[in-house]
Amino acid sequence: MGSSDTKTPPPAAAEQPMKQSAPPPQYKCNSRPVVDVALRVLLFATALVAIIVIATSKQTKMIPVAPGLAVPLTAKFNYVPSYIYLVTALSVACLYSIVTGALSVLALTKPGGISTKMQFHFVMFDALLLGIVASATGAAIGVSYIGLKGNSHTGWTKICNTYDSFCMYSAASILLALISSITLLLLVWLSIYVLYKKTTRR
Amino acid sequence: MGSSDTKTPPPAAAEQPMKQSAPPPQYKCNSRPVVDVALRVLLFATALVAIIVIATSKQTKMIPVAPGLAVPLTAKFNYVPSYIYLVTALSVACLYSIVTGALSVLALTKPGGISTKMQFHFVMFDALLLGIVASATGAAIGVSYIGLKGNSHTGWTKICNTYDSFCMYSAASILLALISSITLLLLVWLSIYVLYKKTTRR
Repeated sequence: MGSSDTKTPPPAAAEQPMKQSAPPPQYKCNSRPVVDVALRVLLFATALVAIIVIATSKQTKMIPVAPGLAVPLTAKFNYVPSYIYLVTALSVACLYSIVTGALSVLALTKPGGISTKMQFHFVMFDALLLGIVASATGAAIGVSYIGLKGNSHTGWTKICNTYDSFCMYSAASILLALISSITLLLLVWLSIYVLYKKTTRR
Repeated sequence: MGSSDTKTPPPAAAEQPMKQSAPPPQYKCNSRPVVDVALRVLLFATALVAIIVIATSKQTKMIPVAPGLAVPLTAKFNYVPSYIYLVTALSVACLYSIVTGALSVLALTKPGGISTKMQFHFVMFDALLLGIVASATGAAIGVSYIGLKGNSHTGWTKICNTYDSFCMYSAASILLALISSITLLLLVWLSIYVLYKKTTRR
């Protein structure tokens, strides 16, 4: 008899603190992995497309070597060491974005969200990768600029007037690599912001 | 009987958590600005020396242009766009390290240390500068590699067999720029670690 009486509405004051302590941080915590996953998907997409674009940039042209004699000469990304470095760095970024993106998606499905420890590890590797991808993008831009403009002081002639399609593909790939670098910077900034917010919330 | 038996052990167990929660974080918090200042001094020193070294890399050589005719030709850092970018990025890093280093020294003198908000701003700019300096270092390495090895596919001849001293100076400057980049990465890692430690301490 007594136990059936307690079923009705229990004290409202006892439920209030329970409700207040749970939902607000949950909302704040859940908005972050969505942006994190979106940025990691963007990183994956830009890195993958950049690799595909530069890998398919091969161009063969008939180059005159003597009056009345032209030979077919090919321009390929693996003839330029800086482009090889760019492809390597982007491949690492691509694989990394798959692994961390999957872990971020898992965090989306969990009620507790991503743990602070994992977030700490993520941002450490994000910063390292930012340095690697930024340096690879810089190296590719440095060499592409010579290809585009040449350098009269060193006697390096421009090649983009001959290999126009190769240069166009390289430029598109470099632009995508630049977006990858900026995405990594945004990922680092986002994680730092979340860590900072966690320190001020205590 | 039972209640008198339980009296003896509690004091030690009750004191333990009190001791654990207070002193260790104080020590850890104060050791951080010292490492931070040391890294900012290292950043300043490497960036400044790198700028000086590349700015003084000018070399003039007599280059034969025809049988019996040689003209003096000069190699300077501002003939290479990637080197101009490197000097610009390192100058920004140098100025930045002076400002943030001074603020870190001020934090050393204060009893409260550096505020979390200022630390948050520091690490945001550190990450941005890491991207800029890393890309400038990459660009310089990419062009220097052509100068050292040449590129038979594009017809770019190596110049380091002629301008040996210029190349040596450039290489030293690039090595110092690489150390600057690594220092910036360590600064970002240190700040992230401190923020992470602050979140776990709550």
